[in-house]
Amino acid sequence: MRSAGLLAWLCLAAPALAQPITLDRFGSFHVGGRQVEISGKPVIEYLPTVGGAPLRIDPNGTYVVGGMYAQFMVPAPMRGQVPLMLWHGAYLTGVTYETTPDGREGWLHFFLRRGWATYVTDAVERGRSGTAMSPDIFSPPVFLPSFNPWERFRIGDGAGSFARGTTLPGNQFPTDRESYTAFMRQVVPRYLNTDEDVIAAYIALLERVGPSAVVAHSQGGAFAWQVAQRRPDLFRALVLVEPAGTGVETDAAKLKDIPQLLIYGDYVDADPRWSVIRRNARRFSDAIRAAGGQVEDVDLPSRGIRGNSHMIMMDRNGDETAQLIQDWLAGRGLWR
Amino acid sequence: MRSAGLLAWLCLAAPALAQPITLDRFGSFHVGGRQVEISGKPVIEYLPTVGGAPLRIDPNGTYVVGGMYAQFMVPAPMRGQVPLMLWHGAYLTGVTYETTPDGREGWLHFFLRRGWATYVTDAVERGRSGTAMSPDIFSPPVFLPSFNPWERFRIGDGAGSFARGTTLPGNQFPTDRESYTAFMRQVVPRYLNTDEDVIAAYIALLERVGPSAVVAHSQGGAFAWQVAQRRPDLFRALVLVEPAGTGVETDAAKLKDIPQLLIYGDYVDADPRWSVIRRNARRFSDAIRAAGGQVEDVDLPSRGIRGNSHMIMMDRNGDETAQLIQDWLAGRGLWR
Repeated sequence: MRSAGLLAWLCLAAPALAQPITLDRFGSFHVGGRQVEISGKPVIEYLPTVGGAPLRIDPNGTYVVGGMYAQFMVPAPMRGQVPLMLWHGAYLTGVTYETTPDGREGWLHFFLRRGWATYVTDAVERGRSGTAMSPDIFSPPVFLPSFNPWERFRIGDGAGSFARGTTLPGNQFPTDRESYTAFMRQVVPRYLNTDEDVIAAYIALLERVGPSAVVAHSQGGAFAWQVAQRRPDLFRALVLVEPAGTGVETDAAKLKDIPQLLIYGDYVDADPRWSVIRRNARRFSDAIRAAGGQVEDVDLPSRGIRGNSHMIMMDRNGDETAQLIQDWLAGRGLWR
Repeated sequence: MRSAGLLAWLCLAAPALAQPITLDRFGSFHVGGRQVEISGKPVIEYLPTVGGAPLRIDPNGTYVVGGMYAQFMVPAPMRGQVPLMLWHGAYLTGVTYETTPDGREGWLHFFLRRGWATYVTDAVERGRSGTAMSPDIFSPPVFLPSFNPWERFRIGDGAGSFARGTTLPGNQFPTDRESYTAFMRQVVPRYLNTDEDVIAAYIALLERVGPSAVVAHSQGGAFAWQVAQRRPDLFRALVLVEPAGTGVETDAAKLKDIPQLLIYGDYVDADPRWSVIRRNARRFSDAIRAAGGQVEDVDLPSRGIRGNSHMIMMDRNGDETAQLIQDWLAGRGLWR
């Protein structure tokens, strides 16, 4: 009786749960990048491993830097009318959209189950895109210690909360020790002079795949706006999930023909930094609207979706926001 | 008539070509790692992006380093009797087993299509496993310029061949400019003091997933032998594809109960470095056999599989070697 009830509840709550996913095709590729010459470096010699043979690496020569990795999955049946891009934020990779740190299905699964051809990328400088010599090509990287996302991504209740182990009331991020450690294992360093490479690679990606609906998180949101200002023809819709910045305000009119959805989670106004970021995003949205564009501005708590950290797609109620995005995309005629 | 003939040929040559793949489940997780304290570093301040808010990163604190990323795909129907691990080599990531640089399906597809639950990892220090502060935690990284794999992985015909654009006769690696650039975009830096972290993470992976058949390439092969010496209970079979090193020879007996398949491609004996590496691997295999173990030693050219570079899984005839591995695994009762 109890397990039958549980099963019924599960089926209602997540109709697709535990159903297989059929992929018409899947795979990966790299796009973009440029060639850089390195010279004047000493040769490196080492014995790679027990039973190996000594290795002599001359690091001087031509490098391909600024390329970007994309993994695609095309489900059958397909219901999305355009490809769906999932772009991650700073210090992160495409893993953002895969299984959550506490082992639930991520937004990648959510959108695949609804028939979207998905493209998950690792932005330039990180993950499977690789990186480049520093400081020769990329600036020295910045690393995030464990307390930083806890306190900066609106999981904990402010400075010192990681050490205290305290969270914002009703917080939905999986904060048990094992899940948070799993999240920190996903965190990668950030280089500070790669913006132009990242933008160029996103353009190369969209040129290869074709006009798409783009869901972009945090730093990825700022990049998405900037990419869209250069190549509005490559965007059919743009969903900005807590963008950490904006496009260029004087070029706001370039975005007037792209339907845009702007989403922020909970605790934003009480946070000294996120409140500024959202204010900037709203001012930028106003500039787009003033030029004749459409930006729908969603404050999740005012829709009854509460407790969200900056990592909405990993929060326990993350699928509520995914559903909101799904409904909005369908409402734009991009899903049938 | 012509296209019907072509279709028939395609169906015979690759029965599974263009068939959808059904996944019972898929996703990713990180395993392993350890905590490290960093102190005494200056705070970093920067403006992340247009429309953002200034950021102040205190890099001092606790880091989780040495974790490892794994992406799993469990097909339906499943015919593999144990999970299948695909471990990559040095300066590379799990992308090794995905789509080839010239856009063909990779060994990941090959084994999924035959019903293996697959686990593709990015070893510690690279890809979606992230990295750690250098030189504080990991040694300074080594980068490979474009000429290096061309000349070292038995694609080109020796020193200077990248500049000349020449290859070994009958070489099977996709060497057109676009494909080779796609391959170089996959290349990531290598840190030289991470071996113990890598071994610990592979053990954590196998402890989580359970006893597996492991296919390991190059540096991954040396790691696989070393991991298996520490935890032989976690291996049901071990396929070493051009291992770049061995295990510890005095502990060879620890591998006596694991069926092992050792594979090297073409042009090995003529290469001053690979000939040494294979000689070491054969001596190590002899030590395993002397202890009562079984290592089947396959020289691909002597089986009529010719022209293979070090990157056999990317070579145009890569599926012939995948089929050889498949048949060998089936012969060990691990596939039905």
